Amino acid sequence: MGPAGELFDGKDLVKLPEAEMVKIRGNRIYENGPADVYCGGAGSCGKCRVVLERGQVATEPTGKLTEEQLAAGSVLACTSTVTGDVAVRVPVESQLGDTRAVLAREHRTVTHGSALTPKDLGDLFGDFELDPPTQRLFVELPPPTLEDNLADLERLRRELARAHGVAEFSVDHACLAQLARHLRQADWKVTATLTRGGDGEGPRLIGIDSGDRSAKHYGLAVDIGTTSVWAELIDLTTRQALARESEYNSQISLGDDIITRIVAATKKDGLARLQGLVAGTINTLIDRLVEKTAVERDDIVYLVAAGNTTMVHLFFGIEPRHIREEPYIPTVNFPPAVPAATLGLRVAPGARVLCLPGRASYVGGDITAGLLASGVFRSEKLTLYIDIGTNGEMALGNREWLLSCACSAGPAFEGGSVKHGMRAVLGAIETVRIDPDTLEPMIVTIGQKRPKGICGSGLIDAVAELFLTGIINERGKFNMDLGHPRLRSVGGIAEYLLVQAEQSGTGADIAITEADLDNLIRTKGAIYAGIMTLLGQMEMPVEAIEQVYIAGGFGRYLELDQAITIGLLPEFAEEKVKYVGNGSLLGAHLVLLSRAARETAGEIARSMTYLELSTNPGFMDNYVSALFLPHTDQHAFPSVLQRVSRAH
Amino acid sequence: MGPAGELFDGKDLVKLPEAEMVKIRGNRIYENGPADVYCGGAGSCGKCRVVLERGQVATEPTGKLTEEQLAAGSVLACTSTVTGDVAVRVPVESQLGDTRAVLAREHRTVTHGSALTPKDLGDLFGDFELDPPTQRLFVELPPPTLEDNLADLERLRRELARAHGVAEFSVDHACLAQLARHLRQADWKVTATLTRGGDGEGPRLIGIDSGDRSAKHYGLAVDIGTTSVWAELIDLTTRQALARESEYNSQISLGDDIITRIVAATKKDGLARLQGLVAGTINTLIDRLVEKTAVERDDIVYLVAAGNTTMVHLFFGIEPRHIREEPYIPTVNFPPAVPAATLGLRVAPGARVLCLPGRASYVGGDITAGLLASGVFRSEKLTLYIDIGTNGEMALGNREWLLSCACSAGPAFEGGSVKHGMRAVLGAIETVRIDPDTLEPMIVTIGQKRPKGICGSGLIDAVAELFLTGIINERGKFNMDLGHPRLRSVGGIAEYLLVQAEQSGTGADIAITEADLDNLIRTKGAIYAGIMTLLGQMEMPVEAIEQVYIAGGFGRYLELDQAITIGLLPEFAEEKVKYVGNGSLLGAHLVLLSRAARETAGEIARSMTYLELSTNPGFMDNYVSALFLPHTDQHAFPSVLQRVSRAH
Repeated sequence: MGPAGELFDGKDLVKLPEAEMVKIRGNRIYENGPADVYCGGAGSCGKCRVVLERGQVATEPTGKLTEEQLAAGSVLACTSTVTGDVAVRVPVESQLGDTRAVLAREHRTVTHGSALTPKDLGDLFGDFELDPPTQRLFVELPPPTLEDNLADLERLRRELARAHGVAEFSVDHACLAQLARHLRQADWKVTATLTRGGDGEGPRLIGIDSGDRSAKHYGLAVDIGTTSVWAELIDLTTRQALARESEYNSQISLGDDIITRIVAATKKDGLARLQGLVAGTINTLIDRLVEKTAVERDDIVYLVAAGNTTMVHLFFGIEPRHIREEPYIPTVNFPPAVPAATLGLRVAPGARVLCLPGRASYVGGDITAGLLASGVFRSEKLTLYIDIGTNGEMALGNREWLLSCACSAGPAFEGGSVKHGMRAVLGAIETVRIDPDTLEPMIVTIGQKRPKGICGSGLIDAVAELFLTGIINERGKFNMDLGHPRLRSVGGIAEYLLVQAEQSGTGADIAITEADLDNLIRTKGAIYAGIMTLLGQMEMPVEAIEQVYIAGGFGRYLELDQAITIGLLPEFAEEKVKYVGNGSLLGAHLVLLSRAARETAGEIARSMTYLELSTNPGFMDNYVSALFLPHTDQHAFPSVLQRVSRAH
Repeated sequence: MGPAGELFDGKDLVKLPEAEMVKIRGNRIYENGPADVYCGGAGSCGKCRVVLERGQVATEPTGKLTEEQLAAGSVLACTSTVTGDVAVRVPVESQLGDTRAVLAREHRTVTHGSALTPKDLGDLFGDFELDPPTQRLFVELPPPTLEDNLADLERLRRELARAHGVAEFSVDHACLAQLARHLRQADWKVTATLTRGGDGEGPRLIGIDSGDRSAKHYGLAVDIGTTSVWAELIDLTTRQALARESEYNSQISLGDDIITRIVAATKKDGLARLQGLVAGTINTLIDRLVEKTAVERDDIVYLVAAGNTTMVHLFFGIEPRHIREEPYIPTVNFPPAVPAATLGLRVAPGARVLCLPGRASYVGGDITAGLLASGVFRSEKLTLYIDIGTNGEMALGNREWLLSCACSAGPAFEGGSVKHGMRAVLGAIETVRIDPDTLEPMIVTIGQKRPKGICGSGLIDAVAELFLTGIINERGKFNMDLGHPRLRSVGGIAEYLLVQAEQSGTGADIAITEADLDNLIRTKGAIYAGIMTLLGQMEMPVEAIEQVYIAGGFGRYLELDQAITIGLLPEFAEEKVKYVGNGSLLGAHLVLLSRAARETAGEIARSMTYLELSTNPGFMDNYVSALFLPHTDQHAFPSVLQRVSRAH
C-alpha cells in the first residue's frame, strides 16, 4: 500500500514527483502501469489488474475480476482512465518479473533429446568462409599539395584503390558532409568502413574514423521474437561471439501476439510506436553489450536480424496490416538493408541493418535463419524443423526440397489464454508431477520462488499428468466422480487446484480450469495438425521423418515424453530429436559472418514451398482429429496408450 | 517614415504585429532587414544603411556613414543590435529592388558578337540521345491470391521484369514503408519511378504513384550562382523546357562573395543556414514553376544542378572551409547524387539531386557545364571559354585538351567594392556615354528608372568613356587639370560626378571615384592576366584563339568594344566572340536529358588541367602588367590606341 504521491511499478514502490502525477492525469493507467498485458488493451484478458490505493478512475465494467477483487479496489488498467492524481498498486501476478534472470535460465538441464553441440555449429560455420558484409580499411593519405590537389573524396578513392583495390563505391551523404574535417583531424590516417554491396547495390562508404580501427570490426546478430529479443555481439575479424543479451520485446505493452500488434499498428502513430518500442529494446541490449565488452558502439557497423514476418515489418516501420487479411500478403519477404539510423538504433552512424528473408506472412526470416543454422538446407535426412511458439511455424524437408507452414497455435505456451498462465519468469511453475495414488501435485518453479502461475512447459506437464492419472479424460474434461478435494467447480467451471492461496506467491489459488484445457488442446492440436498436413502433402508417414529439430526458447525446455503424451508431437523416437536452441539468432550470426550464408538464406527462402493452412481442408480435418488426448486415433500413440494403461 | 509598430522592408511599409516586434528584440536588424550586403555583416561595405525611425539600437562606430547620415539616424544594420521595439526605414539604395523583372532583362539586344542560336543548341542536344537518369514505368499487377501469394515488393519486381525488363533494383526505405497501401489504393495499377544508376550505384526504386503517370516525367535543371539562381523545368519525355525562373541566391544575406560565405559557414549553424537559404531559393523557383506550368511537384523526380565548387558544397551541406586555405582542396569534385529530401527541396519525395562535377576549388561544375553546353569539349577550334563574374573562371582548349584557371576577379562587376556600385537591377546605370567635347555624360538605366547606382556593364562603359575622353589616364587617375565642374575631390578622393542628387533615385550624388577605378583596374587586370597566363602556359599568342565563348548573366550584356578598351579582354575579332548565355544552366539541362552527357561532363572535369593562379609567378607578372588602361604594353591593343588618338 503506497502513501499519497507514490506509484507502484512492476517491482517496487516508485516515488513520483508531483509533476509525474500530473502527467498521468487523463491518461490510461495502462500506459504507465504494468506491461504484462495479453490482449493489447482490449480488456479481455484480465491480466493487467491493478489496485487503486488513492484517487479515482473511470473504469469500464468487466467480468474478469471477482467481486472480492472489485471490493478491494481492483480495476483493469487497460480500460481505466485516470481522472486525477492516483496511487495504484500493481499486484505481483500483473508484474513482468525479473526478466533477465529468467531469459537466461541456462541452469535447467535438457533431459530429453539433445541440443546441437558446439561441434555441430563449428562444422556449419566452417562451411562458410569468413566474408562479412562490411570491410574496414585503414589508409594513410598523402596530404594534398598545390601539385597533388585532388579533392578529399577523390584522394580517398585513389588511396583505397592503391592500398586495397577498392575503386568504385558510392558514398553516404553524411560521410561526405564532414569528410574534410575527419581527414584533417585524423592527420590523413583514417579507417574507411564500406559495405560490400549485393542485392543490386554496389559497395558504399558508410563511415570514416580516425586512425587504424580496421581490427575493431563488429556486428550484431539479433533475434526479434514476438516475446523476447536476443542480441549477440560478434567480432567480424575473429568470428567470435563476444557476448549475448536478451530482453522482453517492449512491444508486449501493445499486445502479446502478432495479430494484436498488427491491429495496434493500424491505429494512429501505432506503427511508429511499435517500431520505436522494438528499437528501444534493441538499444537496451546494445547498451548492455557495449558495457559488458568495452567494445565501442561506433565500431558496430552491421546488424543482421531475424524475426517472423510481422516482427520484421514492425521493426522496419513497414505497414503490416495485409499480413492478417486474406490472402495474407506481406509487403516484403526480402527486405533491403536500411541504415540503422533510420530505425533509431544507437550503433555506428552509418551502420546498416539487414533482415533475413522470409517465405510468407507466417513463415518468416526466423524460420529461414533456423533452417540455415541447423543445416536442414544441406541435410540428406528428411527433417522436421519446428519452432513451438505463438505461431507454430515449421518446415519439412532436406537439401532437395522444403515445405513450410504456420499453424496459429495461440499464446497458451507463453502464458496467454490460460487463467493462471504466465511467461517462463521467476515463480512460474515449470514442472508438475501428480501422485497417481493420492492425486496430489508436486511442483517446481523457476528460481524456486513461491509459485505465481504456470508457464508453457509446466502446463504441458500438468495436462500430461492429469491425463495419465485419469483426472481428465481424452476430451480434457475433469472426472468429477473422483470426489478429490482438489477437484472443484468455480463459477460453473471445473478446475484442479494446483496451489492453495496460502502457498502461492500471489495470495490466491492457482488452478487449471477446463477452459484452460480447451485452449491447450486447441494449441497442441494445431501444431500436431500442422505436422500431419505437411506429411500428408508429401504423402509420407510420420516414420519417414529422420530427424526433428526443435527450436525456440520454449522448445528448449519441452519434455519430449510429456509433449507426446498430450499429442503435441507424434511419437518421435528420442534419438531423432535435437534442440536447436535459438535457431533464429544462430542464422543471423551466420549471415553476419558470411555473404555466402546470406546467399544461401535467400535460396532457402526462395525455394521453400509454403502451405497456407488457414484455407487448407486437410489441415482442418487433421486439426479436428487432434482435439483429443493424445488423439482421436489412439493407435497413432501406442506408447502413450501403454503409459495410460500402466498408470490406471 | 513609419508609425510606431511598423517596420520598413525592401519596398513598402510592412505592418508588424507586436509579437514580431518582440521577436526581433535583441537580434541584429540585419537579420530582418535589407538583404543587400556585400561584406557579410562585417560592417566594412556600408551597403546596409538603415534609418532608425523609432526606438534604440546599440551600434558600432563606422566610417562608412557621413555626419549628415549619422545625424539623420542612419546606422549600419549589420553592426547594430536592437535593444527594444524599433521602427526602421530601409533607404532605397539599400534595397534589393524588384529582382524578377531585372534578372530577365531580355529586352536588351546583344550588340556585339553573337549568342548561340537555337540551332547551335539543337545540334548539341541532338548529339546526345534522350536517356534521362530516371524512368517512370507503368505496371498493372495481378492482385495476390492464396495461390499467387508473392509479397508486394517481389510482385512489383516480377511485373517490372515482365513488362519492362527491369529486374534488379534497390529500394528506398520510404517507398517500402507504404508500398502495401499505395498498391491497394491504386487498385494495383501504379507507376514506378526508378533511377537508372551509374557511378557505382545500381538502379533504385524511388517512388510509387497511383495510376499511369509514366508520361508525367519531369526534371529540374538548376544553375546555382553566387549571386543568382536559375531553374528550368524540363519535360523528360519530350526534352522540352517548359519554363524558366530565376531569383537572387538568398545566401547573399550572409555575404556577397564566396570567401565571405565560406567564413560564414564556419560559424555556429552557419553551414546549415547557408544550405537552408539556397534550398529556400530553389524551393521558391519550384513553387513558381509548378504554378506557371501546372506540373505537379511530385512528378519532378530528378534535379541536376551546376554551380561553382563552393556553391555545390554549401548546397549539399558539405564543409567548405578548406576551399579557401592553401592548398585549396574541396571535399569533393564529383559529388554523389543525394535525395532531394535530404537537402530540403520540395519535389517528389524520392527525387534525387545530382551536381555536375568540377575540377578544383575555383573551377567548378558550372564551368564543366558550360564547356559541355557550348560544345568546347568536341570543338576542333581552339576556344577560350570565360565566365566573367566574381571568380573569373575560364578555360582554354578544344576536343584534345582543356586548361582552366580562376582569377579571383572580385565583385566590382556585380556592384561590390564600388562606391555607387549595385547589381544589375532596376535603376542601375547600364550604359554610359561621355561627350568628348563637353565631357558631359549620357546614361541609360535598367527599366528606365531614376538612377540609383551603377552596375557592371555601366561601370565598364563609364571607365572606357572616361579613358577615351582623356578624363582619366592609363593609370586610372583623374586629369584634374581639365578643370571640369564634374571633376572634384570629396574627402581627398578625386571623382567624376555621373548623376547629381536632384536627378538620382537615391537623393544623393552618384559618382565614380579613383578608388572605384583602382578596384575596376584590379578586376579587369586579373581576368586579362588569367587569359594571358593560360596562353603562356601553352606558349600560344592571343591570335591562336579561334573562338571566344563568353558565359554568365553579366557576359551577355558586356559590350565587346568597351571591354577591350579598358583591357578586360584582348583585342578579339568580333566574329570570334559568341555569347553562351547561361552555360551552367544549359549544361545541367543536357545532363538531365542524357546519361551520355553526364558521362561527358565527367570526362571534361577529369581531363581538364587546372592551373592554380594564386601561386603562379607568370600570373603575377601578367597581372601587374595589366594594371593599366588598356595595358602596360600598349602595342597589344592597337585598335584601342587608334580610338584614343582619334578621340583626343
